Amino acid sequence: MPVYIAGVGMTPFGKSGSTLLKLMRDAAGLAVARSDNQTIDAIYVAAMNPEEFTGESNLASRVAEALDLTGIPALRVETATSAGAAAFQTAFQGVASGLYRNVLVIGGEKMTHLSTSATTRILAKVLDEQERLCGATMPALAAMITESYRRKYHLSEARLEQILCRIAMKNHLNGSRNPYAQFREPISRSKYLSSKLIATPLRLYDCAPISDGAAAVVVSAEPTDLIISGIGQGTAPVSLRARPDFTSFPATQIAAAKAYDMAALSPREIDFAEIHDAFTPFELISIEDLGFFAPGKGGDAVEAGATSVDGERPINPSGGLKSRGHPVGASGVAQIVEAAKILRGEARFKLKREPRRALMHSIGGLATNNFVTIVERARDTARTRKPLQKTGAESLSALSRRKHAAADTRVAAEGEIETFTVLHVTPDGFLPPLGLALIRDKKGSRLMAQAEDIKQLKVGRLVYLRQVAGIYSFTVGSHLREVQQALRKLLRAARGRKNPARDARRK
Amino acid sequence: MPVYIAGVGMTPFGKSGSTLLKLMRDAAGLAVARSDNQTIDAIYVAAMNPEEFTGESNLASRVAEALDLTGIPALRVETATSAGAAAFQTAFQGVASGLYRNVLVIGGEKMTHLSTSATTRILAKVLDEQERLCGATMPALAAMITESYRRKYHLSEARLEQILCRIAMKNHLNGSRNPYAQFREPISRSKYLSSKLIATPLRLYDCAPISDGAAAVVVSAEPTDLIISGIGQGTAPVSLRARPDFTSFPATQIAAAKAYDMAALSPREIDFAEIHDAFTPFELISIEDLGFFAPGKGGDAVEAGATSVDGERPINPSGGLKSRGHPVGASGVAQIVEAAKILRGEARFKLKREPRRALMHSIGGLATNNFVTIVERARDTARTRKPLQKTGAESLSALSRRKHAAADTRVAAEGEIETFTVLHVTPDGFLPPLGLALIRDKKGSRLMAQAEDIKQLKVGRLVYLRQVAGIYSFTVGSHLREVQQALRKLLRAARGRKNPARDARRK
Repeated sequence: MPVYIAGVGMTPFGKSGSTLLKLMRDAAGLAVARSDNQTIDAIYVAAMNPEEFTGESNLASRVAEALDLTGIPALRVETATSAGAAAFQTAFQGVASGLYRNVLVIGGEKMTHLSTSATTRILAKVLDEQERLCGATMPALAAMITESYRRKYHLSEARLEQILCRIAMKNHLNGSRNPYAQFREPISRSKYLSSKLIATPLRLYDCAPISDGAAAVVVSAEPTDLIISGIGQGTAPVSLRARPDFTSFPATQIAAAKAYDMAALSPREIDFAEIHDAFTPFELISIEDLGFFAPGKGGDAVEAGATSVDGERPINPSGGLKSRGHPVGASGVAQIVEAAKILRGEARFKLKREPRRALMHSIGGLATNNFVTIVERARDTARTRKPLQKTGAESLSALSRRKHAAADTRVAAEGEIETFTVLHVTPDGFLPPLGLALIRDKKGSRLMAQAEDIKQLKVGRLVYLRQVAGIYSFTVGSHLREVQQALRKLLRAARGRKNPARDARRK
Repeated sequence: MPVYIAGVGMTPFGKSGSTLLKLMRDAAGLAVARSDNQTIDAIYVAAMNPEEFTGESNLASRVAEALDLTGIPALRVETATSAGAAAFQTAFQGVASGLYRNVLVIGGEKMTHLSTSATTRILAKVLDEQERLCGATMPALAAMITESYRRKYHLSEARLEQILCRIAMKNHLNGSRNPYAQFREPISRSKYLSSKLIATPLRLYDCAPISDGAAAVVVSAEPTDLIISGIGQGTAPVSLRARPDFTSFPATQIAAAKAYDMAALSPREIDFAEIHDAFTPFELISIEDLGFFAPGKGGDAVEAGATSVDGERPINPSGGLKSRGHPVGASGVAQIVEAAKILRGEARFKLKREPRRALMHSIGGLATNNFVTIVERARDTARTRKPLQKTGAESLSALSRRKHAAADTRVAAEGEIETFTVLHVTPDGFLPPLGLALIRDKKGSRLMAQAEDIKQLKVGRLVYLRQVAGIYSFTVGSHLREVQQALRKLLRAARGRKNPARDARRK
C-alpha cells in the first residue's frame, strides 16, 4: 500500500517558554489543519528522554489528552536522537499494514530550561559507559571521529578548519532564510574562527545548539502530492572503541542502501537532502555515506559550493540542525516538514533545479541508530518501485557463541594513541582542558583514557596506562618509567622497615 | 498479510542479579532458538523507564549490540506499563506492512535493585502531576477506584474483601504451577487477611510485586501454528479527576472492541485470558470491560470459580502479574509467551476445555493506554476474518475550541468527597497514614486533596478545601467554620492595632 504525506507543521525552534505538551499540540494543530482529511486514527510520538528533560513519563497518553484525542491509540517510539525519524518510519508501517489510514507523527523535546551541563549529561547517556566515565561527551567523541577523518584523508589542520567553517557558514546562511530556525543570521569566517573551542578541533559553531521545539506530520493512506518512496534504518555498536573505522557511519550506509533500494533511486537522482549535522563533520561524513560524494571528497564538494542552495546538490537548505536548532526528538520529524515545504514550493529560496526528490537522514546517539527516508512528488514517480519486502537480515543462530569485542575490557599496560581530543567544555566533575584518547593495546583491544598531560597527545604515540577507580589514564613512557623507579625505591624502603629479618639476610 | 507467532521465551521473573541487557539477551536467545527460521529482520524493544531504573539511554542500539545483531533496525516502543504489548502490536504492523518477515520483540525491566520508595516514585511519574503532588501513588489511585466500584455495585466491605482475596488466592495458586513465576506458593485466606494494608482497602497481596525479568517473541510472516487474529489499543485521560466513571476502563473497552472486531470473535469464544492484574481489583474490572461478565457481576463469577484454571473462563492461568511478577516493560510480552505455551500444550495444567483462543490484556499507567491482543491456533481459524482496516477514528478539527476538563484547576471552597483511600505506605516526604480523596466542587470540577483528619473520610461528605503551596487539603465543615471564626477574630484584632483612626470611628 503506498503511503503519503498529508499536512505538516512545526513550531519555531529555539528557547521557548511553552511546555513540551504545548509545543507538540501547536505543531500537531498545524499539521492536521493542513491535511485535507482531518481524521486521525493513531498518534506516534517521539521524544528522546522526557523522563529526565521534563520529568514526564507516560508521554503518549498525555499527548493524546493534550490534543483532545483521548481514546485513539497513542504510542512513543525512541531511538535516542533519531527518535523523530523512528516514529515517522514506524507510522509508515502502521499505514502500510492497512491498520490505520491516517497517523499523526509528533516529535518534540524541551531542553533549554536546564543548564548546559545538565543537558550535556543527559545527552551523554546515549554513549558507552566506559567512555562516559572518562568524561567523554558527544562533542568529545565527535571530535575524535573528526581527527581520524582528517588523518585518513591527509588533510592539514588548516584545510579541515576551512571545510568545517564552510559548512557552518552555509548552514547559517540557509537558516537566515528560514523563519522557524533558531539562528537566523549568517556568520562570517572570522566569527567562526573566534568562537570557543569545545573539543579540539570542534568549535562552538561546529555544534548544533540546545533547543526547544516540536514538529508534526500526518502520514496517510489517502493519496496526496507527496509519496514516501523509500525508508531504511541501520544500527552500529554503541561504543566508539568497538568500531573498525571512525571515518564513516555504517548505520547510515545500511539505512541508505535500503531506502535507495525501496525507492529504486540512486544518490544522483536526489535533488536535495536534509542531513543530521549535529556537528559540522557529521555533515561531511554523511554526504559521503549517502553516496553523494566519494569517500574523502566531501570537503572538495563543500569548498566548490556543490552543497549550497544554488549548488548541484543542496544539503540542509533549511539550515540543518546547526542553524535550525536541535530539539532532539523533534529533529527527525522537522526534516520531513522542511523537505515537504520545499517540494511543495513553499520555501523562500530557489534551488538550482526544480526539487522533486528529497532525502532525509537522521542520526541516533553517536551514529548507532540511523534512518534514511526518501520523499517524492507523487506526479514524478512514474517508474516501478519495489514492493515492500524484507530488505536486510542477519542470523541470530550463533547468539551464544560469538564474542563481544566491546565487552573485552582487559588491557595491557602499554598502548598506542589511535585518536584524541582536548575537551574544553567538560562534564560536571571534570576540569578543562581534559585530554581524552582512544588507546589500542598490543592485543588490539581499545579503551578510552584520560591524558595525564595534554601536551603528550599525538596519534601513534606509545603510552602507558593505569587505572584508578575504573577510570584509565595514560602517560608517555619516560615519565612512567621514572614514576615506576621511584615507586620501586619507595617500596624497597618500606619493605626494609617492615621486614628486618629479610633485610638482615640481604646484608 | 497474516501475522504469526514463531518462537517465544522468557527469563524467570523475580529478583535477579543480571543486568537488563543480559535478561533481554537471555529471553531473546530462547525465542529465536525456538523459531524454525532464525533470521531476524528487526528488533522492537519495550522498557518503561530504563533511563531512571538503570540509567540506560539509547536502549534499542544497546540491545542490538548485546544480541550481536548490530546493523539491523532496532527501536524502542513505550506506553508506560503496557510498553511490552505496544512493542508487540507495533511489530505486528512492521510485519503486516510487508517491510519485515521476522521481528524480534523483547520486553524487559530491571527494578529490584532500587528501594521500594524509589521504584514507587518512578512508577508514580505516569500519574497526573496535581494528583501526584498530594502524595498519590499507583496503589492510592487503584484503591480509590476500588472504593468507587464497591459503592456503585453496593458491595459490603466484607464482600469486596472476600472477592479480592479469592482473586489473589487463585493467582497465587496458578503461579505455584508456573516455574517462571516470582511467587510459587499458594496463599491462604488468613495469610491474605493478615497482610499489610497498603492503601485502604488494598493489602500487600492485592498488589503485583516489583520484579526483574524479560520476555521475547518472534513475530513472523512465515506461517506457524499460532496466528495473531486481533489487535486493539485505546487511550484514556491521565488524571483520575478527568474521568466520568471509575468503575470501568474505557481504554480497555476501546481496545477490546477493535480486537474482537478484527478477529471476528465474541468474548464467549475466548478460551482463556491473561489480564493486567497489577492490583486484584483491576482483574475484577477488566473481566467486565472485556465482556466476559456483565458489569458488577465479576465478583459473583470469581466467587463461583468461573475464572479458575478448571472454570468456564480461566483468567491468568499463568499466575498473572500478581504472582508471576511485573517487570513493567516485560509484562505485555510475557502474557503472549504464557498464552503461546498454553495454546501449544506446554503448560503443566489442564484447562476445562482444550485451549484454542487466547486473549491478552495490558494496562499502561492508570489504565490510560491499554492493549488487547487475540492469538489463536492457526488450524482453528476457518472463519473469515476482516481485512486490516481503520477501526476507529476521531476528528481533530475542533482542536483549539474544546475545553480541557483536566486543565481546569480553579476550585470553590466547598466540595463533596467522591471517593477516598487511606495510604499506609506513602511516598518519601509524606507521613502515613495519609488520607486522600477526590473532591467534586459545586461546579463539577474535581481535584485530589489530602484529608486533615482521616476519621472524616466518608463518601458524599461535604468538606472545605484550602490550598498551601499548591497542595489542597480539606476538613469537614464545623471544624473549618471554627477556624474561620478564629481567623476573623484575629484579623479584626490585627486591623484594630494597625488602624487606630478606624478603631476610633467605630467607637
